[in-house]
Amino acid sequence: MFNKRIKIKELLATAAQGQQVTVMGWVRTFRNNQFVALNDGSTNNNLQVVIELGKYDDAFLKRITTSASLKVTGILVESLGKGQSVEVKAEEVEILGDSDAETYPLQPKKHSLEFLREKAHLRFRTNTFSSVFRVRHSLAFAVHKFFNDKGFFYLHTPIVTASDAEGAGEMFRVSTLPFDNPPRKEDGSVDFSEDFFGRATNLTVSGQLEGELGATALGQIYTFGPTFRAENSNTARHLAEFWMIEPEAAFYDLEDNAALAEEFIQYIIRYAMENNGDDLEFLRQRLLDEEKGKPQTERSELDLIQKLQFVVENKFERITYTEAIDILLQSNHYKKKKFQYDVKWGIDMQSEHERYLVEKHFKKPVIVTDYPKEIKAFYMRQNEDGKTVAAMDILAPGIGEIVGGSQREERYDKLVERMKEMHVPAEELWWYLDTRRFGTVPHAGFGLGFERMVQFVTGMGNIRDVIPFPRTPKNAEF
Amino acid sequence: MFNKRIKIKELLATAAQGQQVTVMGWVRTFRNNQFVALNDGSTNNNLQVVIELGKYDDAFLKRITTSASLKVTGILVESLGKGQSVEVKAEEVEILGDSDAETYPLQPKKHSLEFLREKAHLRFRTNTFSSVFRVRHSLAFAVHKFFNDKGFFYLHTPIVTASDAEGAGEMFRVSTLPFDNPPRKEDGSVDFSEDFFGRATNLTVSGQLEGELGATALGQIYTFGPTFRAENSNTARHLAEFWMIEPEAAFYDLEDNAALAEEFIQYIIRYAMENNGDDLEFLRQRLLDEEKGKPQTERSELDLIQKLQFVVENKFERITYTEAIDILLQSNHYKKKKFQYDVKWGIDMQSEHERYLVEKHFKKPVIVTDYPKEIKAFYMRQNEDGKTVAAMDILAPGIGEIVGGSQREERYDKLVERMKEMHVPAEELWWYLDTRRFGTVPHAGFGLGFERMVQFVTGMGNIRDVIPFPRTPKNAEF
Repeated sequence: MFNKRIKIKELLATAAQGQQVTVMGWVRTFRNNQFVALNDGSTNNNLQVVIELGKYDDAFLKRITTSASLKVTGILVESLGKGQSVEVKAEEVEILGDSDAETYPLQPKKHSLEFLREKAHLRFRTNTFSSVFRVRHSLAFAVHKFFNDKGFFYLHTPIVTASDAEGAGEMFRVSTLPFDNPPRKEDGSVDFSEDFFGRATNLTVSGQLEGELGATALGQIYTFGPTFRAENSNTARHLAEFWMIEPEAAFYDLEDNAALAEEFIQYIIRYAMENNGDDLEFLRQRLLDEEKGKPQTERSELDLIQKLQFVVENKFERITYTEAIDILLQSNHYKKKKFQYDVKWGIDMQSEHERYLVEKHFKKPVIVTDYPKEIKAFYMRQNEDGKTVAAMDILAPGIGEIVGGSQREERYDKLVERMKEMHVPAEELWWYLDTRRFGTVPHAGFGLGFERMVQFVTGMGNIRDVIPFPRTPKNAEF
Repeated sequence: MFNKRIKIKELLATAAQGQQVTVMGWVRTFRNNQFVALNDGSTNNNLQVVIELGKYDDAFLKRITTSASLKVTGILVESLGKGQSVEVKAEEVEILGDSDAETYPLQPKKHSLEFLREKAHLRFRTNTFSSVFRVRHSLAFAVHKFFNDKGFFYLHTPIVTASDAEGAGEMFRVSTLPFDNPPRKEDGSVDFSEDFFGRATNLTVSGQLEGELGATALGQIYTFGPTFRAENSNTARHLAEFWMIEPEAAFYDLEDNAALAEEFIQYIIRYAMENNGDDLEFLRQRLLDEEKGKPQTERSELDLIQKLQFVVENKFERITYTEAIDILLQSNHYKKKKFQYDVKWGIDMQSEHERYLVEKHFKKPVIVTDYPKEIKAFYMRQNEDGKTVAAMDILAPGIGEIVGGSQREERYDKLVERMKEMHVPAEELWWYLDTRRFGTVPHAGFGLGFERMVQFVTGMGNIRDVIPFPRTPKNAEF
């Protein structure tokens, strides 16, 4: 076996008792021909490896460059330097792989996030990105643990789908037909019956409808999979390919749903705080450094960890959409005409409105419920007032909408009526309607965009920096 | 809050002390106008609800049909009937949703798996499929738990990819160009530079290459995501869309890799055995019933649970490809010309060969290593003999190849040379080659087809019955 190493994360938590250890990792820095800062990805903390002066010749020492990979066997001793409790006195240093300092794309200096995005294949080797992706891992694991512990079953809903009925956004076509010369029907239109799946198919925009099929039999399910939007949005908040979590629960109403979402969000943030303290501390400092360039008024009142602490310790605010509009209309901000977009009952709130509510008015996450039915999807449960539906959005400081959900319309007649009004083809969704025809139950669910959540927890401003290989308009590199 | 119910799984483990409880679920059967078998998806065991004779009128009782949904409040009492320890004496029965017995597609009788595949939106409501999907959930959770506990980071590799270099199989095109009339270049060919991503893109066949980028910085990663093959294979073993798990570890050789795979497989099976005893017992019985129709010689020697027990308790056999071929050549099976396909060094072993090794010769899972380089991918590490590569396949009884993996070629020159020989375009994989140029390390990984694993654990013969909504040629329903 090649791998008899100890991970640096484990080593740094070990008491030095003169024991011999073997570590492997990549060089972050090499100072004074003596001190190697070695990183193996298990933690953002480096291990200091001390090389005895004169033990190796210059030709060898010159090969210890940034990102070169080493295998080091040595003695674990207490460290005299500051910043670490233990270090390794090298007995044997083997260079596993060289890294030519002249051509290695990442120099040991600060690179811009934009630059690193072009080097996404190597950015895992930086402190910032290794921290982000370790936190991302923890959040993902916490998602599974939360739902598993609650008895929700993980359901893999389909990625390729013939359904385009939900109307959640522009879709990508999936096909094996030759673009150059596709088979055509008599009328000249493309004959998708000859396509791989015997019909036109797309990449899913949501697993919700299929999730409801699972929930109305297994009771409680959740999805965690990739979803796709072919929108030409070149912003810091949009990806063409992103991961979404969609729990769906039978015997749930809107209040159950909101309680679940709040508990869920607080749980996964707490999990990251408990398991990624070092990473979050690094990211907190990174954010403080970044904000130094900003005017005082634009800096955050709370640092990253304080912000997370605040969210896990305080109950989310709950207001109806109607109350939210009232708050906006009565605000000085509105009276001084500082909103760019109009405010009145019926609008689809803009980002500036949501941010005002969350960041200025409540200063905490807000669950907004009971939206006008005109601005929400066909499957949301119609309220008694005839005007609103049992929808809920959760708005978070600095990030905006992080959760969208609803109690679903479980009444067959009302659902069919609404589908007609909104021109949703009932014949294509026969299977969805069957759940309302045979033993329908009150049920509810929500969707959480995973990358938005990772942004919130890591403080990264651009969504492209929290997914390993972002897919955006004109970009599918790596 | 609507949902103040107790889950049936929890209730069945509760001591009856005359306490009042509320349960909700779907009717499985209703006998003698008195005994409801209620299921809420939390377990395959039904709760017996006893309705007092004469308490409800006939019109009401007629509505208690298979798959109708009920809310029942009543007293938890010890059960006098066999098969359950407790039951609920109903005080109040509310019908949440009717299910017309005439039109409900699943009658309370045995349906064929083929029939249920057409009703995949409702098959979650059967004992077989709810058991299968609860086991699937447990296996998925065990995957995450295993790797998380070992310090592997979950990495979301891209689904849409411009890379088609791996050559793992036929791919699906992803596009937003109009099929009817795509933009064309001067030479008449389709101009993919105008496509959404600015180039031709496909659905991924594997996250391995990107996974290696993560592993050579974070140390150890795993993927768990959907992968796609546009192969026109209408078999019980193939899906066009399936989920794959691909761990990748730096500082690993083939032996480390094999040890990881064995430990991993045993862990997730053991997890399901510990957490899904009732489901597996049901599936064991189902399989015994199914096999009753077969001649004695075709029946399994071990039942489902014995088979799983055997796999978790016995070390996997390890042999080289060369040894495997020798065993085949020396077998009576070969000498009696019972193999359909030829056996000689260099062949890509057929299913019949693999099954012979696993089911007849060793009677346990076998790890076959060091395959001829000609039949394996470009990225596998070349052995000193010049003929073989450090590949490994794991073959399982009844299922065939369940894992494929290798130590990766970490030596830049050897990798580039092999890519040339195999006509893999190095310029498209510049980012992959960079990991070998800058601090390359020995590393290894494998892929496990999740559905094959679910089949193995549940004993389901057709892969379409272990994924919620199978995608196969000419089929993308739901």
